Amino acid sequence: MKDLRDAIRVFIDQREWEQFHSPKNLAMALSVEVAEIVEHFQWLTEEQSRNLAPEKLAEIREEIGDVMIYLTELAEKLRIDPLEAAKAKLEINSKKYPATLVRGKAAKYTEYR
Amino acid sequence: MKDLRDAIRVFIDQREWEQFHSPKNLAMALSVEVAEIVEHFQWLTEEQSRNLAPEKLAEIREEIGDVMIYLTELAEKLRIDPLEAAKAKLEINSKKYPATLVRGKAAKYTEYR
Amino acid sequence: MKDLRDAIRVFIDQREWEQFHSPKNLAMALSVEVAEIVEHFQWLTEEQSRNLAPEKLAEIREEIGDVMIYLTELAEKLRIDPLEAAKAKLEINSKKYPATLVRGKAAKYTEYR
Amino acid sequence: MKDLRDAIRVFIDQREWEQFHSPKNLAMALSVEVAEIVEHFQWLTEEQSRNLAPEKLAEIREEIGDVMIYLTELAEKLRIDPLEAAKAKLEINSKKYPATLVRGKAAKYTEYR
Repeated sequence: MKDLRDAIRVFIDQREWEQFHSPKNLAMALSVEVAEIVEHFQWLTEEQSRNLAPEKLAEIREEIGDVMIYLTELAEKLRIDPLEAAKAKLEINSKKYPATLVRGKAAKYTEYR
Repeated sequence: MKDLRDAIRVFIDQREWEQFHSPKNLAMALSVEVAEIVEHFQWLTEEQSRNLAPEKLAEIREEIGDVMIYLTELAEKLRIDPLEAAKAKLEINSKKYPATLVRGKAAKYTEYR
Repeated sequence: MKDLRDAIRVFIDQREWEQFHSPKNLAMALSVEVAEIVEHFQWLTEEQSRNLAPEKLAEIREEIGDVMIYLTELAEKLRIDPLEAAKAKLEINSKKYPATLVRGKAAKYTEYR
Repeated sequence: MKDLRDAIRVFIDQREWEQFHSPKNLAMALSVEVAEIVEHFQWLTEEQSRNLAPEKLAEIREEIGDVMIYLTELAEKLRIDPLEAAKAKLEINSKKYPATLVRGKAAKYTEYR
């Protein structure tokens, strides 16, 4: 993770792109890259999405790489550790969606209140 | 990272949500969580986005957590390591956008060919 | 359509929101509203998405309204008529995806070349 | 509007794409097309986004066309009139954001309560 952060910083510095990479713009870029993942799945059935061909997987791997890059950069700019943020959010979600209440159901938590 | 993956798996298993979490659906959920980050920035200037109030930051931290959770889960389901994917993509990007060509410019790489 | 454009303009003027509604920000807001549509569908099967309950439909109707509002406002700001743009794009798509080639197939047009 | 709906239906029928166009999938496609609009704006300043070059505008016009196409198709499938939905939502928004309270402020309506 630290390696990735460092490599991203070097990449940005060499290109003098820091001026374009405000948190606002990084949030936009993150959403664009996620859409490129979604694009791979939009016409597939769920079943097909569980059984992707190797070439398709290789393409999606690149998009996941891009999403991870922008997420890491955005988080660093805001001094947030994405791993810690994920763990903390998982605990919040555990309380928001008690297993006994939501087991086997996909509805939103507001629908359980 | 491994800790996070394990914690997510336990969270999903306890709720029997595996049935809903096809890669297709996870890609959708990922895009929805990223939009919740974007929502925080949509009416801010870039300058404001670089100087967020602590309460705003705390909210964005939760959204970044959600994005990291879904990204980790999607990647694991496809047997992709997001950190490795990011490093590999950064190398591809380094060739796609040579520093000497793109320095200080934000245009898309196709515009340099 | 003209009525909608006028009603939006009055709405924005009364709130003095023009200052926030740059095309960049409207594009972000549009993406956030579309994600609220996606959120309704993320855990549904395709079959379920074809058979929505009336309450769910009423909620989605509101989100479609929001998307239409931002799309109309963004287009007007860029002096684009969204209906004309859609018709023109449909003709482009007709050539890009010849019926004889793509019939019954969902793959991207680049995969036919 | 009716013309557009008819033209879309013919386009889909000729390609036998109805089978792929569940509301769930159309929502995904809509989000992908919106991201293509966002992509044009991600590295621009707000000022630049108000002063686009003609070639850039021509590209964005195509993306707006695509968004309008999928929005129209999704809405028709759910028997929703997007124009009526937009007008109804604008009235809801007028009450949610009273001009006297929000004038010149961009914050979310929950922040006024």
